[in-house]
Amino acid sequence: MESLSVALGSRSYPIHIGAGILGRADLYAPYLAGSAAIVTNSVVAPLYLERARKALGAARVCEVVVDDGEQAKGWSALDRIFDAFLGARLGRDGLVIALGGGVVGDLAGFAAATYQRGVSFIQVPTTLLAQVDSSVGGKTAINHARGKNMIGAFHQPCAVIADLETLDTLPDRELRAGLAEVIKHGVALDAAFLDWLERDMDRLVARDREALAYAVRRSCELKAAIVAEDERETGVRAVLNFGHTFGHAIETATGFGPWLHGEAVAAGMVMAAGLSTRAGLLAPADAARIEALIRRAGLPTRAPSLAPELWRSLIAVDKKSASGRVRFVLLHGLGRAKLESAVDGRLVDETIAAAAQ
Amino acid sequence: MESLSVALGSRSYPIHIGAGILGRADLYAPYLAGSAAIVTNSVVAPLYLERARKALGAARVCEVVVDDGEQAKGWSALDRIFDAFLGARLGRDGLVIALGGGVVGDLAGFAAATYQRGVSFIQVPTTLLAQVDSSVGGKTAINHARGKNMIGAFHQPCAVIADLETLDTLPDRELRAGLAEVIKHGVALDAAFLDWLERDMDRLVARDREALAYAVRRSCELKAAIVAEDERETGVRAVLNFGHTFGHAIETATGFGPWLHGEAVAAGMVMAAGLSTRAGLLAPADAARIEALIRRAGLPTRAPSLAPELWRSLIAVDKKSASGRVRFVLLHGLGRAKLESAVDGRLVDETIAAAAQ
Repeated sequence: MESLSVALGSRSYPIHIGAGILGRADLYAPYLAGSAAIVTNSVVAPLYLERARKALGAARVCEVVVDDGEQAKGWSALDRIFDAFLGARLGRDGLVIALGGGVVGDLAGFAAATYQRGVSFIQVPTTLLAQVDSSVGGKTAINHARGKNMIGAFHQPCAVIADLETLDTLPDRELRAGLAEVIKHGVALDAAFLDWLERDMDRLVARDREALAYAVRRSCELKAAIVAEDERETGVRAVLNFGHTFGHAIETATGFGPWLHGEAVAAGMVMAAGLSTRAGLLAPADAARIEALIRRAGLPTRAPSLAPELWRSLIAVDKKSASGRVRFVLLHGLGRAKLESAVDGRLVDETIAAAAQ
Repeated sequence: MESLSVALGSRSYPIHIGAGILGRADLYAPYLAGSAAIVTNSVVAPLYLERARKALGAARVCEVVVDDGEQAKGWSALDRIFDAFLGARLGRDGLVIALGGGVVGDLAGFAAATYQRGVSFIQVPTTLLAQVDSSVGGKTAINHARGKNMIGAFHQPCAVIADLETLDTLPDRELRAGLAEVIKHGVALDAAFLDWLERDMDRLVARDREALAYAVRRSCELKAAIVAEDERETGVRAVLNFGHTFGHAIETATGFGPWLHGEAVAAGMVMAAGLSTRAGLLAPADAARIEALIRRAGLPTRAPSLAPELWRSLIAVDKKSASGRVRFVLLHGLGRAKLESAVDGRLVDETIAAAAQ
């Protein structure tokens, strides 16, 4: 097991990465004061719920199993969670365990952020996407019909327990969706990591344990450094949204579900790279490298066909917008993403038009 | 106009208290960056919405009017607010104005806390209860069918604008409900203020402007000092809940509405004083003084008749409970409230039994 730290002063927390660690009682014990609640979904529960429950020892544990999929990330599942917490008399000193992928982590994390104005929680990510991205950094949210992750809170976990063994049970499509965020970290933040990904993508797709371990660790290192610098995304953290402005639009337009988040981000990164090239910031050959790598990961490189007006209205509600202007994360070369507030609307229109081809 | 400060480091903020100040543009201007949203209710809107809107000058302003009353403090009103914010494309740099009483402040504050993971907001309290208590300190929440304020967040406003003129339009019953929290501040924190209240209660009930101004200012001073010491209620701030464990039970049992919050707290304070006396901490004569003052304010001193089992189950979900034990705020003399974790259950039962008489 390796342990990294997210350095946030009194709210610093460890990220543990290793095979078979989700059943280790010693990783939960420091945070158990009163009773606990495990939130998971119908796919993960039969696989790992019992193991997590045992790791909590004698503590009184309430279990909440939500539906699988992005559709669960809304108010009705949230209210069921609150109902279960209140029914179990979970107190302010209770501990919430988010056992599952990004949806469970976001949903259970937001429940922990707002239940009795905030209780502690541990992220136990069981998908590659959650291990490399969503479980780290304290972003929690639910979706609104008008936009993804529009309702949420910054609420840091007290620990992240990333068990690499859980990737063995992950469907291929989910694994690839996770690789989208791994690729994002290389493309946006670290050209050397991008080189490594180009060399080792076949091993990752083939689920080589060592390669996956490195991809998880390096992704967490890169993300932890950004989060430590800008916890609440008032500045540099926005670069982690590379590909997400277009990606969220795809997810919202298609109704959260047909496109996995990672798939939408993959197609969104191709669009964002294209926009960077149109803005004269990124060499066409570098944009082509990004697209080729995404394709090798088995991910979509083309967005679904959406009307230009729909694109524009979905992009307009992006959370990065300021003073009514949409802002985009663009690449100034590989590994160098920056938030841009003055992007020519015509270049955005061209990018949307190109996506439809 | 007088201005106090809530000292919370980088999140410090002013409380402005004065007559006719809600229309002063200079009090909003420092916090206006992008567009704004005013959340208010159907009673306050015809009285003050136009004045607040004008104070925001040329900014793009979205208005959301929710129903009057505690029933509005739930998910459905919250979702309407989110819908309006998203429809108006309120960005992360948007400013939310909570114009109204405690319900509007809690609801709009929670919307601001969670919309796009948190935007700025200003409290413009228009009831005595909100001016002396709920608008200060950053507690925001909605109710859950199983308990009041169970879902919420700590989210400090960037300013509080308490316009004493708004008290002129307040119904008598609402004014008295606000006096309950004023009395609480004296009883729990400041025996000298309690003496003043005993002397000047008739002036307060008669809406003497000078007396009300002093009651608002002293209440805000007392509360601001506690909040500065313990923002997230991990310790001393809990004493501000004096009377609220029983009070919340009354509100939940009666379905949020028939009893105003302040009325429930008034009856709850009489019970909490009684429990303090039974625990040997408070002289019976002091408990009698509290009850007499509450009666002079025109507030109820007796809880509604509830089955003992209902009392116990409602008390058990109180947010102050720890490790499965309910904790009570008790008085160790007038002006000296403390959180107690080891209260004999029989004394609680006796207090519940006495309340039914």
